[in-house]
Amino acid sequence: MHKQYMDLAIQEAKKGTYTTYKNPRVGAVLVKNDKIIATGAHLAYGQPHAERHVLTQCESPEDVHNSTLYVTLEPCHHFGKQPPCTQAVVESGITRVVIGQLDPNPLVSGQGKAYLESCGIEVIVGIQEQEVRALNRAYLTFYEQNRPYVVLKQAITLDGKISIVHNQRTNITSVDAIAQVRKERAYYQAILVGSQTVLADNPSLLTTESTKFPPLRIVLDRTGRLFSNLTYAIFQETNVPVWIFTKYASIPKLPKHVQVCQLTTDDSITEVLMYLKREGVQSVYVEGGAHIHNAFLQADYVDEVITYLSPTLIGGNSVSSFFDHTTVPTMKKLSLHHIELVGEDLKIVARRDRPCLQA
Amino acid sequence: MHKQYMDLAIQEAKKGTYTTYKNPRVGAVLVKNDKIIATGAHLAYGQPHAERHVLTQCESPEDVHNSTLYVTLEPCHHFGKQPPCTQAVVESGITRVVIGQLDPNPLVSGQGKAYLESCGIEVIVGIQEQEVRALNRAYLTFYEQNRPYVVLKQAITLDGKISIVHNQRTNITSVDAIAQVRKERAYYQAILVGSQTVLADNPSLLTTESTKFPPLRIVLDRTGRLFSNLTYAIFQETNVPVWIFTKYASIPKLPKHVQVCQLTTDDSITEVLMYLKREGVQSVYVEGGAHIHNAFLQADYVDEVITYLSPTLIGGNSVSSFFDHTTVPTMKKLSLHHIELVGEDLKIVARRDRPCLQA
Repeated sequence: MHKQYMDLAIQEAKKGTYTTYKNPRVGAVLVKNDKIIATGAHLAYGQPHAERHVLTQCESPEDVHNSTLYVTLEPCHHFGKQPPCTQAVVESGITRVVIGQLDPNPLVSGQGKAYLESCGIEVIVGIQEQEVRALNRAYLTFYEQNRPYVVLKQAITLDGKISIVHNQRTNITSVDAIAQVRKERAYYQAILVGSQTVLADNPSLLTTESTKFPPLRIVLDRTGRLFSNLTYAIFQETNVPVWIFTKYASIPKLPKHVQVCQLTTDDSITEVLMYLKREGVQSVYVEGGAHIHNAFLQADYVDEVITYLSPTLIGGNSVSSFFDHTTVPTMKKLSLHHIELVGEDLKIVARRDRPCLQA
Repeated sequence: MHKQYMDLAIQEAKKGTYTTYKNPRVGAVLVKNDKIIATGAHLAYGQPHAERHVLTQCESPEDVHNSTLYVTLEPCHHFGKQPPCTQAVVESGITRVVIGQLDPNPLVSGQGKAYLESCGIEVIVGIQEQEVRALNRAYLTFYEQNRPYVVLKQAITLDGKISIVHNQRTNITSVDAIAQVRKERAYYQAILVGSQTVLADNPSLLTTESTKFPPLRIVLDRTGRLFSNLTYAIFQETNVPVWIFTKYASIPKLPKHVQVCQLTTDDSITEVLMYLKREGVQSVYVEGGAHIHNAFLQADYVDEVITYLSPTLIGGNSVSSFFDHTTVPTMKKLSLHHIELVGEDLKIVARRDRPCLQA
């Protein structure tokens, strides 16, 4: 019974897909005498949390007395953009709260549950936890691992190549896959590339998806190769911030949307991720090139790999995905999660955790 | 109407899958007064052709008079293991023959059709030709392109790598994929690898599928690296012939199942394929390694690529699929045809011709 109502709450939570921004997706269901009396969700950043939303969906406040609240994530117990949900729950007359998972955000983390219990409300935790966790991969990674969720995106041939020659763009995938990548960027809070990708491809790194929260554009440019030519698309397109991480000191005058972040160690990948964590960036979509992807892999920051696989071959001494000139001791194992045809290409999603394949 | 009966004949033809060996798969349907009076197929090498088989399936010979024969491939007009089918058709009283495609085998090629017409039988050609052609990719390539059908099989990581270090085996795919490859070998008339693969992996190159026609084992060993060590599995497993193509002259005494074929030019791949053509080998399953695959690619002998993709990453300076040290000018385009989960891995089939995807 708990499982069934929690599954419905999970479906509700998905109504907030791509609109809750830094907030988790959360769904809620109110049940009384084995009947659903209301459903609700956190629909968008800045709007009411799921617990308050579901209360507004009830026909009369009396219905709520002695009801059970199913909610995918622990109710908050702090003032953010909204007053604490725990307060609304207690005032409503709800007598039991069934929670999918506790909130790893230290502002909540167990305090919501403790407060509800101190007010005499029965609390049950851990129903459909695996499914609930899948709602908020980035949010959970951000609070549990203290870094952004890292997605490595690549476009490769059947033989794992990304271009015919070094320093020159080869269109590997079809227009459909390229268009999907441009939309997909909107699902993340930051897009990251190496300076080599800017030099070879000159991408804008913008998303074509209409969104209130376009992702930050980040370039890792340790030696400052971009500063000698301010005509690159990332400099010309001024609507979305660009952050350049570099060890280079002689920074020229840059457009206002461009910010320079000085790197101080040799472990640039860790340094960038820690910086993003401090700035509240919960997810990063890393578009390459091969050295950048390899650096994330060797530093073991890989939560997800999205591969657009083109049914083509190059061979010869062409450029391989994920490489540098150092020997690696071992391979990293992921699990297939999702496979999809995109135009003439195949999209393959692999993740760090256990598989749950939708073929 | 023609289409519907030809589709049924195509279904019949599939009953000969994996048993017709060098013969094409052929299906036949006899129709009289818009009723199907019999169906038949070439079921196995050495057994009757589809045209004779369908005639044996009729309840009475009188039924056949004035009937229409639907047959996927042009009836033969020469004595092989069986007397010519044209003769049986004419004697049966069939008055119309609808043919999927003409037979490119020069022993037949139009002569069957011409003979039937000379006997006053109406002949229609080209019904469902694309679907009919898909029945016999290897057979058609063998007669139309004068070489075996070439399938390149690879097992790679998400970053297109085949091993962690050179000259040493890395298990890339799961046991399920490895088992499927061993069965899959039975679908081809020859398995080919480079000497490097024998040195690094020591495969038997046998199939685990029970078959009357196990594929030949072929090793391309230009410099004769295998002859100094006769303990390799290909030498120890004596039940299936091994052909070694080499430029090396000092051949030691070899087991009886091993035959040496001397290469005389620098274009080894073409030379091997022409040799196989002369020997009647219609298909070859090329298991690598990277240099061999690349040589087939650069010589433009790629009909199909079967990729077993493991959700793993290696990166660094590990070994890439399809490579050598020369610059290539362009990429080769194939089409996705089939995608399948095999254990924890993904099997992806891409072909030279247009797509017809079964996802």
